[in-house]
This record gives sequence, C-alpha cells and structure tokens, in this order.
Amino acid sequence: MKKVLILGAGLSAYVLIDYLLENAEENDWQITVGCRTLSTAERVCKNHPRSRAISFDIENSEQAEEEIKNANLVISMLPARFHPIPAKLCVKYGIHMVTTSYVSEELWKFDAEAKEKDILLLNEVGLDPGIDHMSAMKIIERLKSEGANIVSFRSYTGGLVAPKYDNNPWNYKFTWNPRNVVLAGQGTAKYIVNGDYKYVPYHKLFQQVDKFNVLSYGEFEGYANRDSLQYRSTYGLDNIPTMIRGTLRRTHYCKTYDVFIQLGMTDDTYTIENSENMTYRQFINSFLQYDPEKTVEQKLSKYLNIPEDDYIMYRLRWLGIFDDQKIVGLPNATPAQILQKILEEKWSLDPEDRDLVVMQHIFEYITKSGVKKILKSSLAVEGDETKTAMALTVGMPAALAVKLILQGKMKANGVKIPTIPTIYDPILEELEKIGVIFIEEEE
Amino acid sequence: MKKVLILGAGLSAYVLIDYLLENAEENDWQITVGCRTLSTAERVCKNHPRSRAISFDIENSEQAEEEIKNANLVISMLPARFHPIPAKLCVKYGIHMVTTSYVSEELWKFDAEAKEKDILLLNEVGLDPGIDHMSAMKIIERLKSEGANIVSFRSYTGGLVAPKYDNNPWNYKFTWNPRNVVLAGQGTAKYIVNGDYKYVPYHKLFQQVDKFNVLSYGEFEGYANRDSLQYRSTYGLDNIPTMIRGTLRRTHYCKTYDVFIQLGMTDDTYTIENSENMTYRQFINSFLQYDPEKTVEQKLSKYLNIPEDDYIMYRLRWLGIFDDQKIVGLPNATPAQILQKILEEKWSLDPEDRDLVVMQHIFEYITKSGVKKILKSSLAVEGDETKTAMALTVGMPAALAVKLILQGKMKANGVKIPTIPTIYDPILEELEKIGVIFIEEEE
Repeated sequence: MKKVLILGAGLSAYVLIDYLLENAEENDWQITVGCRTLSTAERVCKNHPRSRAISFDIENSEQAEEEIKNANLVISMLPARFHPIPAKLCVKYGIHMVTTSYVSEELWKFDAEAKEKDILLLNEVGLDPGIDHMSAMKIIERLKSEGANIVSFRSYTGGLVAPKYDNNPWNYKFTWNPRNVVLAGQGTAKYIVNGDYKYVPYHKLFQQVDKFNVLSYGEFEGYANRDSLQYRSTYGLDNIPTMIRGTLRRTHYCKTYDVFIQLGMTDDTYTIENSENMTYRQFINSFLQYDPEKTVEQKLSKYLNIPEDDYIMYRLRWLGIFDDQKIVGLPNATPAQILQKILEEKWSLDPEDRDLVVMQHIFEYITKSGVKKILKSSLAVEGDETKTAMALTVGMPAALAVKLILQGKMKANGVKIPTIPTIYDPILEELEKIGVIFIEEEE
Repeated sequence: MKKVLILGAGLSAYVLIDYLLENAEENDWQITVGCRTLSTAERVCKNHPRSRAISFDIENSEQAEEEIKNANLVISMLPARFHPIPAKLCVKYGIHMVTTSYVSEELWKFDAEAKEKDILLLNEVGLDPGIDHMSAMKIIERLKSEGANIVSFRSYTGGLVAPKYDNNPWNYKFTWNPRNVVLAGQGTAKYIVNGDYKYVPYHKLFQQVDKFNVLSYGEFEGYANRDSLQYRSTYGLDNIPTMIRGTLRRTHYCKTYDVFIQLGMTDDTYTIENSENMTYRQFINSFLQYDPEKTVEQKLSKYLNIPEDDYIMYRLRWLGIFDDQKIVGLPNATPAQILQKILEEKWSLDPEDRDLVVMQHIFEYITKSGVKKILKSSLAVEGDETKTAMALTVGMPAALAVKLILQGKMKANGVKIPTIPTIYDPILEELEKIGVIFIEEEE
C-alpha cells in the first residue's frame, strides 16, 4: 500500500483529494489529510474508507517528522513559506513531494540532496503556474525539434465567469482568492518586445492592454504580469526578442478597474482613518480632491476625465460604491481591504454560476525554410455542478502528477517544475482525457 | 570649559561647526568633531585652536562611551538610525544631545530617563523639521492666547535657486540631497480638508498642486507631503478641520516632473537590465510602449497626452533625456538612480549660484469676536558667497540651540522637539538676528 500525506486543504484541495480517493482502491493508496482543524480534514475526507483525517500542525516538528517519514509521497498545500519544512523531512527520509506553488530560493537548495536520494520535489503543477508551463514547453520543444526559430511568445491566462452566467456589467466575478484579484499587478511589469526591454508601473498597467480572441469565447483583453523576463530562461528561450506573460479579462474590464488604481483604492500599505464607521460614499470621496460645489460622482468624473454618462460611471454606480447608507464596518482597514469587501458583495459567484478558465499562447516563429508563422494554442475550461474550472485546472495537474509518480510513470528527481518532457508529457496526456485540451490555430 | 562633541559632518555641518568655533573663545568651549575619516573632521575644523578633530566610529562602543562621557553636549549628525547609540550614553552620563532628525519611536523611549537626569535630548531643530515647527507654534500659541479658533493650517517649504540665478527652463536646481528630491513624495499623501480625510497616491500627487505667493518672490506651487495628519497632535490642533503640509516648487515644475512619475522613472525598487551600457534615449524608451512607427518623442507625447510643442516637451529635451549618444554608465542601477544622474548633469548649482529657502504658513481662524481672518507668515532666505540658504537654515537652529543650552538659557528636559516656548522662543529670537525673519500678512 502507498501512503499519501496531504498537508493543508486550500481552495483547490477538494478536486485533488476527490481524485486521489476515487483512485485509491484501484491503486492501493491510503490518503491522509492533515489540517490544523480536524473538522476541515474530516470534511474533505468524507469518511472514505481509504482516507484518514488528522489534526496536523507543521510547526509541531515531532508530529511533522512522524507523519512524513511514514508516507510515500507528501503533497504540501500549505502557504508557500512553509514548504521548506516538509521538503527538508522528505529529503531526509527519501520521500517524494508535490506542491502547486512557485519554487522559492530556499526550496531550490534541496535540489542536490533530492537528486542524491533519487526523489522528486515537484512544484508549480497547478494552472498558472502549471498548465501554462507544460503546454508552452510542449510546443516550444516541438518547434525547436522542427528547426524553427521562435521570435515571439506571448502567454495569457484568466479566470472568469462562463458566458451563460456572465450577467453583470463588469463581465467579471471572483472565481478565486478575491484578495489576489484586488492586489493583482502591483509593482512593475517587465517584459521585452523586439529586443526592447519595457517597464510598466502599476498605475499605467491597466491602461496598456492587448486584445485576444480565444476560440469561440470571443474577445478578451490582457495586461502584463509582473516579471516576464525570467521566463526566458525557464523556457529555454534566453535570446527571444519578444516575451510577455499576462492576465486575461473581458474587454473594458481593465479600463474600469483602473479607476480604483488611479484613485489609490487598491493600496494595502496603510489604514484609513475611522474606516469602520465610514460609508462607501465617504470611502471613495477620501480619494477625490475637496470641492464643496460638486457631488462625489462629479468630482470623480472630472478628476479622471470620464464623461458622466460613460459606461465606466455606470459600472461604478452598479457596484454601489457611491452608496451613502452602507457602512464599511471594517476597523483599521486598508483601502484594498475595503475595496475587496465592496467588490465581494457584487462579484461573488451565485451557487448556480459556472466559471471559465482561458489560456492562450501565441508563438511567432520562422520555419527552417524561412517562412514566418503564427501559432495560437488556446484552452477554455468551464466549471460544472461539482467543481469550478479553476479548482479543476489548479488541482488536477497536481493530482495526476501524484498518480504518475506513485505508479512509477514519472522518471525525474531533484527540485523540478514541469518544464521537462518526462514530467509534462504524461500529465498533459492525462489532462486531455478529462477535457483539458489545447486547440491549435495556425496563421 | 564646556566640551561639545559633534558626531559626523553632514551637508549642513559646516555652518553649525563654523558658528560654534566662532563663538568658542567667548564662551570657553572646546569643539570636538568626530568622523569616520579623520581628514573630513580636520577639514571642517580648519586647525581652529578651539577645535579637536578625531577619527570616530559610533559602532566602536568603547570609543563612543569614552568620548561621550567626557563631553558636556553631544550633537549627532549621524544618519538617524544611529541616534539611539549616543542617546543611550548621553542618558547614562547625564549629557545633553541635539539632532536635526525626526524623532524615531526608539528615541522617544529615552524620555523618562532623560527627565530623571534633567538632560535635554533635542531633535528636529533644522529647517524642515525645525524652523517650520518653531515658527508655526509661535503663531499657534499667540492665536490661542487671543482666544482665536484655528480652522485651517497649511504649511509649505521649499529649497530652490535664487531668482537671479534661476536660469534654466525647469526653474529648479538641486540645493540639497538630489536623491531625496528624486524620491520625494513616494507613498501616499494624507491630509484633511474641512473635516474630510484625503489620501493621494504618488502617481496623482504632482497633479494636485496649490498656488502660493511668497512675499516679493512671486508665484510658487506646492504638493502635499506624506503624512500631514500626525501634525495635528504635534501642534496641539487635534480637531482642526484643515491641515496640510507640503513642498514648494516654482509654477509648472510639478506637472513636468510628473512625466517621470507617470513613466515610472523614479522607481527605486528594481534594477534596469543592462543599465550600464544603455543610452539616455534607450532609458526613457524602456518606459514607453513599443511602436516601430514613432520616434521616442512622439511615443512619449502620445502616451502622456502632451502636445509635441508643449513646454513640457521642451524641458525634457533640454534635460538631454532623449540623447542617443550619452551612456548611462551605472551598472545594475534603478530607474531613480539613472534619473538622478541625468538630472544632476543639468540641475547642479554653479559655483556662483545662490539658493533660496522659502516657507509659508497660512492660518485661517475665527477671532474671539467671530471674525474670520487669514494670516500668512512667510520666510525667504537667500544663500551668500560663504553658505547656502539651505545649510544656514538647517544648521543654525541646531547651533543656536547648542549655544543656548550651554549658556543655561534653554530650560527643558526629556526627549523634545522645538514645539514648546522655552525652546523655540530663544532660538527664533537668535535666528532673527541673523536674518531668518518671518513676515506676517493679514487678510
């Protein structure tokens, strides 16, 4: 019997755990789920005969060592800063580990020892990071093997609401951690276009969008993610003249969300005076210049040069952000925390809503015979009644990786991300079977 | 004989040291200047018979203790983070201390012990902070004593070039630490207007200026400084409806400097790829969207919606920022470091140039009899051939405080800033004698 230990149960954990439990009998697995709160672990285990729910605290080093040394594979769904703790024990006892997080500097340090023990510490096997790496690398390797010279790679991913349920004026609902959506893009975006490095500060980022069409899903717009430059070496494209990675939203979302950025309402570094007792209207007014002659709406319209009858003003009114009755109710809150609260009231998924995950890679390359070509590879996944597309696409790559490792079908060791064929080939093959399929279009 | 120990020799130190040496004979003082590099200490001491130059390292605790316990008063011109080291020793041995820095949390902790030992740890006795506090408090106390109700206090300070030497299109030259000028305003400005809290993010700050006229010096504009709210309690105006503190520049400076802010060129948090070998033109181009059809100037003009024949474009061209020959030459530099280098080539004071310090307080108050009044109190100081106005106004308040403390004319103890009459009255009186005089205008 193979023993799997899952530490923590994040947003995507239910898909991962369900899959492992469904396949436990056939593969002779025992699935242990450890959470700080026992009831959380029990809830996701659903009394499955192959499951074991335990109360687990990663900072209890005796328990951590005891549980990890008895496992055959550890999945850490803990916050990324904790990963080095199980990683150290996995390396000590020669146990594989899987995470969906970005690899930290600290984690890379286990690489040599993991290779020595012939164990795999596999990270970034979710959606983004995860499916983005795998699907891109498969095409990059294919084009390289055909002798093509890749001159441009743009890659965009978005989590949105499925068209049928896309019934609010923003064409957006929260399908993942709202806090990350509110803070998205802060810092400086860095990318390269035709050999020119480009740096875009946050307050200009949402004003610089590119247009995309994804399969039958119509038009999207995308803004650049923080550091696209580092992915040149990740993908073995060190000298590529154009490389941008970004986030997809429905057309005009960015221009409207930019109002919050321009006003400073997404700032998470200071707290607002008397935030608990202020109205939504007072909240937005605190970012507008004092003018006793004008309404809050008029001040905003003038300040950001948005006509009062513009769709942007309509979207803001629809959000209720000018409401002079509703109270913020959050003590010592940052602007970002207050904005998140206001957005959650309007942007939350209804129980019947389904979400949509879209991803598009656009490659420009010169064939061996000197012909310039454009290749688009697109993914669109909708959620269903049992799971969101987001939880599926984040959780399944990890679940499949776990299965493949335990079945001995993934031959790799050391600290890895899924950019090598021995890892991404079998996972992509399994993902296709469950409908996570990229469609290629050539120009 | 009274012994004064000066630790460090910052930009304003020469005015302070000259003054103390000039008055040393008459007052029977010995002035010791301690710098990490002995030659720096020797240079400012100029072999004056009352001086003693030493090599001094505040982190050499044995030397620090030895020197401080033998002094009657310590002036710390060290970077502010070091002040707690001499403060601790001053408290231990019952010695007065003076700094021109903002009081840190850590320094406030010495208050009780300093009171017990009846010694004064006096801070923020420069220009801003310093003269701003003293001149404002003198008026606030006077208005309060007349039974007035102060409803608005706006206070702005600027370091500029004197009109006769104001011969560049920006109407600005560096008269103090250039790095501070390049980074000025980063974060969020917080102030209150008619009871409404206002928060202005950096990328909007230089677009929100107020106009000021200072004496015969004509028109200025001012942007708000970071946190004006905390000064309500500093000045004993906790319930004042309007309070803003800010920085003065010549009209249109802010709108032009805002180009750098909008582009992200003042960012000091990341380094530019290949910064050492890029031209100035490549530097500015890395903040502009890729467009092979347009020149760098055209892209900037379009991006920020500035007509190509606008004075802003002229000022930018004059700076040489579009130069395609000049090389940055700074390895691994941040945008802010590169911008500073470019600005220093054009904004440095010529040897014959004189600087100008301006300060203006504007009070609105209701008299005891219910009449609304406006009181402006303005200061303008020009530099001369021996010293800049900035070094004078930063260095002299500290020098005078030292004299008054040693002469026993300043009765105070504990950790203090100059907001109490026993401290600011004698200093302001002495400052008037050397031409630092506020002119009041009533409306």
